[in-house]
Amino acid sequence: MDYKLIDGKATAAQIKQELAAEVEKIKAEGGKIPHLAAILVGHDGGSETYVANKVRTCEEIGFKSSLIRFEADVTEEELLRKVDELNNNPDVDGFIVQLPLPKHISEQKIIEAIDYRKDVDGFHPINVGRMSIGLPCFVSATPAGIIELIRRYGIETQGKHCVVLGRSNIVGKPMASLLMQKAYPGDCTVTVCHSRSTNLAEMCRQADIIIVALGVPEFLKGDMVKEGAVVIDVGTTRVPDATRKSGFRLSGDVKFDEVAPKCSYISPVPGGVGPMTIISLMRNTLLAGKKAIYAE
Amino acid sequence: MDYKLIDGKATAAQIKQELAAEVEKIKAEGGKIPHLAAILVGHDGGSETYVANKVRTCEEIGFKSSLIRFEADVTEEELLRKVDELNNNPDVDGFIVQLPLPKHISEQKIIEAIDYRKDVDGFHPINVGRMSIGLPCFVSATPAGIIELIRRYGIETQGKHCVVLGRSNIVGKPMASLLMQKAYPGDCTVTVCHSRSTNLAEMCRQADIIIVALGVPEFLKGDMVKEGAVVIDVGTTRVPDATRKSGFRLSGDVKFDEVAPKCSYISPVPGGVGPMTIISLMRNTLLAGKKAIYAE
Repeated sequence: MDYKLIDGKATAAQIKQELAAEVEKIKAEGGKIPHLAAILVGHDGGSETYVANKVRTCEEIGFKSSLIRFEADVTEEELLRKVDELNNNPDVDGFIVQLPLPKHISEQKIIEAIDYRKDVDGFHPINVGRMSIGLPCFVSATPAGIIELIRRYGIETQGKHCVVLGRSNIVGKPMASLLMQKAYPGDCTVTVCHSRSTNLAEMCRQADIIIVALGVPEFLKGDMVKEGAVVIDVGTTRVPDATRKSGFRLSGDVKFDEVAPKCSYISPVPGGVGPMTIISLMRNTLLAGKKAIYAE
Repeated sequence: MDYKLIDGKATAAQIKQELAAEVEKIKAEGGKIPHLAAILVGHDGGSETYVANKVRTCEEIGFKSSLIRFEADVTEEELLRKVDELNNNPDVDGFIVQLPLPKHISEQKIIEAIDYRKDVDGFHPINVGRMSIGLPCFVSATPAGIIELIRRYGIETQGKHCVVLGRSNIVGKPMASLLMQKAYPGDCTVTVCHSRSTNLAEMCRQADIIIVALGVPEFLKGDMVKEGAVVIDVGTTRVPDATRKSGFRLSGDVKFDEVAPKCSYISPVPGGVGPMTIISLMRNTLLAGKKAIYAE
């Protein structure tokens, strides 16, 4: 089959331009520039990179951004005070607390302390619950990015069988929830498989759409996919690679060489879902700035 | 196959005794008797019956109950004021607003106005979201009742393929959410089928557990079920029946005579899931009274 590559990098670049154009329009009309704040605790390498990318993308789009740093020994109380301050700061439209947090701080407690109307990460239970019910809400970045890829590539979903591999709170569960809604993209028969599933390969072979979010490099093999399937790879595992200067490369959850020839559409790693994640956070920030989801 | 009947009536009666024993213990220790309040708007026959049953069951268990009535022309503001009053009444541990509400009132607005810590119906987005995330919460009555039946009958779920027919916010979606959690009952591969599904019968034939919540009388036929399946019937449609004094009988979503012989376990209608629903609300009321899910 002649597969079509789902180019997340190009799509994200396109959306970035659209967002920048919206900011220009807001500016021209004298409106308030959307403002994203990010709290970063400690100096974890991954978290530093993610937050730096978010701040840089804000700048490129024209959003206002604030980076608030704490050392790794910050107390939960101090962090909660900062969350409360951002909740009450009318200039901050949305904010995130970069995860993971140090062990002595309850991530759940911090997440639930965030005003759900500023929860652009979409992790607050109110946003999770509203998504499940089918109400307007902030959808977390990775699922929102995947939905946007499906929409922009015009992939049919109604009545299709979508198999989601993985049941994490940030990818598997929300993907399942979104794709079963009465909506486009949506209206799928949805199956969620995970580490305990005994019929995973069997389910994959029946799937029209497979979303792989297990974090197991090259897990999905050619013989697990039917002809014409749409495959979306959410995996991003660093595997050692002596031929790279960095010493590693990013591996997806899909054995691309085997799977791609059977697909109608497939997203690569890197350059597929990854670039859509930050851009979805940016889109949520714009929605927060416009009070498009929750009125004041 | 020699199927085993899942007797919801007997199980509910058993749980009712357990709850009554807990109330006795609370009384003996001088604790606060759990108090459920119910708001009933208008005089819809079904709603009157449901609320009357809830109040009666409270009395039988030994809970305190309050019935608050409004005429069908009550304004949304009046209703919201009452919700606020109940939120702030320390004697009321949990309360429900019987649905449906008259068209001029936004059900969602009322539901979201309820303090989630008193939301024993489990309809508030915070409770829905926490359930999805896997955090302690009030689970709505029908899914909670089904989970309890599975638990009390010791039905294996880990690694099993559970097919949920229906994607309603009060049954299908929460059932899917609960059965995919890392828990018992749970750890299932879960498939959600609905009106738009094109592979529904095919999915059912592969299922170890089928939960039918479509509201279509006798929808699930014998040839849609594999040998040894567990079938749980959530349907309760009133169908005309001239041989009954009432003029109708309750029909489930399962063609029982055809399906039952193939099952390992099957729940009948009536006497299956139905009796578990009120009892699950009662269990939530006890949990609310004990502040077992949310501390003050």
